[in-house]
Amino acid sequence: MPPARLSTKLDYQSLLDKHDTWMFDCDGVLWNGDRLVDGAVKVLEILRSHNKSVLFVTNNATKSRPSYKKKFDKLGVEAHVDEIFGSAYAAAVYVSSVMKLPKDKKVYVVGMEGLEQELASEGISYIGGTDPADATLASFSLSSFTRDPAVAAVLCGLDTAINYTKLSKAFQYLQDPATTFLVTNDDSTYPAEGGLLPGAGAISAPLKTASGREPLSIGKPAKTMLDCIKAKHNFDPKRTIMVGDRLNTDILFGQNGGLSTLLVLTGITHIEDIEGPNASTIVPEYVTNSIGDLRILA
Amino acid sequence: MPPARLSTKLDYQSLLDKHDTWMFDCDGVLWNGDRLVDGAVKVLEILRSHNKSVLFVTNNATKSRPSYKKKFDKLGVEAHVDEIFGSAYAAAVYVSSVMKLPKDKKVYVVGMEGLEQELASEGISYIGGTDPADATLASFSLSSFTRDPAVAAVLCGLDTAINYTKLSKAFQYLQDPATTFLVTNDDSTYPAEGGLLPGAGAISAPLKTASGREPLSIGKPAKTMLDCIKAKHNFDPKRTIMVGDRLNTDILFGQNGGLSTLLVLTGITHIEDIEGPNASTIVPEYVTNSIGDLRILA
Repeated sequence: MPPARLSTKLDYQSLLDKHDTWMFDCDGVLWNGDRLVDGAVKVLEILRSHNKSVLFVTNNATKSRPSYKKKFDKLGVEAHVDEIFGSAYAAAVYVSSVMKLPKDKKVYVVGMEGLEQELASEGISYIGGTDPADATLASFSLSSFTRDPAVAAVLCGLDTAINYTKLSKAFQYLQDPATTFLVTNDDSTYPAEGGLLPGAGAISAPLKTASGREPLSIGKPAKTMLDCIKAKHNFDPKRTIMVGDRLNTDILFGQNGGLSTLLVLTGITHIEDIEGPNASTIVPEYVTNSIGDLRILA
Repeated sequence: MPPARLSTKLDYQSLLDKHDTWMFDCDGVLWNGDRLVDGAVKVLEILRSHNKSVLFVTNNATKSRPSYKKKFDKLGVEAHVDEIFGSAYAAAVYVSSVMKLPKDKKVYVVGMEGLEQELASEGISYIGGTDPADATLASFSLSSFTRDPAVAAVLCGLDTAINYTKLSKAFQYLQDPATTFLVTNDDSTYPAEGGLLPGAGAISAPLKTASGREPLSIGKPAKTMLDCIKAKHNFDPKRTIMVGDRLNTDILFGQNGGLSTLLVLTGITHIEDIEGPNASTIVPEYVTNSIGDLRILA
């Protein structure tokens, strides 16, 4: 069944009536880089004025929730830290609540400060990450490496300070099959100001290739992310809608969790990706050009 | 048919008689890291004393031929620059002789000095590589990037100074389908002193993931490497043997080129990889424990 194209006030009114909880991807939906999507702020206000729950579900793993909130503040979008679910936070919750990592064990991190902050907030010990000792482009020798026997998992997220030392150390731990291999998310790229840049899925690719192992991915479209939200918020999946711009992350995430799905065309997906001969097999329930279209409900 | 296990003097004498040209992988065959394989030097002397051609065929792409020769010198192994074929050299020959890159075009390099030296020796213009401007762990912004319209190919090899800036720039070029995507070799790991480290296949993995493209691989097992050798040396494939320690690179390379193949067990392949229920589908023609076994011919 093709997606329902929304266009009339009645369409949007019906969508509003059917859903109590609205989950939003951010980049490509509410903003593009540092540019707000026209009408996005107004639409969030309308939802809040109708007492809808608003949650922000992002695969961004470089920022902690408090740090990510600053992005909302800067763009003038109302958001509260407990409404924000990033894949860094979800990864930390996974390690503490699902893996139940013993207190004497550690995570080896390939990632940035936000990921470390979320691990720390969940009381998880870690090494690697932004450790200045590893911030080097010098060649790496195993003779200078001592394996920390407390490391029980490798967690990799987007790391724009990636280097050979970090990859080599992570790979040493991954050669032990007992080491859990986690990635915050599998996005191959992410949209930056001026174009696409390599995403977390690209940064973890050397570890997958060298180890021959497939990691467990925490972020969208994985259900792990929804489990993390469920642990913190009550919502009825049947009355929840996921709004996103990516078919293979946002829309698939909604479908995996039994949510309604609304695709917007302000991000990476174009109309020819969902209509015509080259359409994706991932079909959203609803489509609209922009989240700003819901302003009609004001 | 299972491989022939060599053990008697007659076995080795027959092998010697059948082959005029002996191609050797180096690491895992002649040495392991900085440790010579017992008897390797003597066996090369025996081959030379019988007027055999000796060639060294390595996927190492971090060193130019003259620089790689220093490794032989250091370990006391006789070798001449024109007997050494590395994947860096083969990649340069591919770009100049097969691609026939016009003189006004350039290669964007992800790789090390040896790769640059081989490109320069073939008269190929390049950017990237060890450019100090890109040797940074600072975050990368597309606003500071100006695409060089002369770049017609991205060439990626093992780069132990890999970083996000290099990956991001290479990825910008690869988003243009007209840009040729080459990798020196696809080895996921390589043996270093003390264990395995991520190889060229791991370093190029982020570019494959981000671009969704499959590169052309130059090194073993690709036939491109043999074409490069053919351009420089006369040999009869029917009277040529490839000696190596890796089934999916060395042995497959020999088979792809119609050569005889001899597997040695001093490197990455163990006897259970070629015998029993978990044996590989890549079956060498001959197997011996070590190249040193041929000392029996002295």
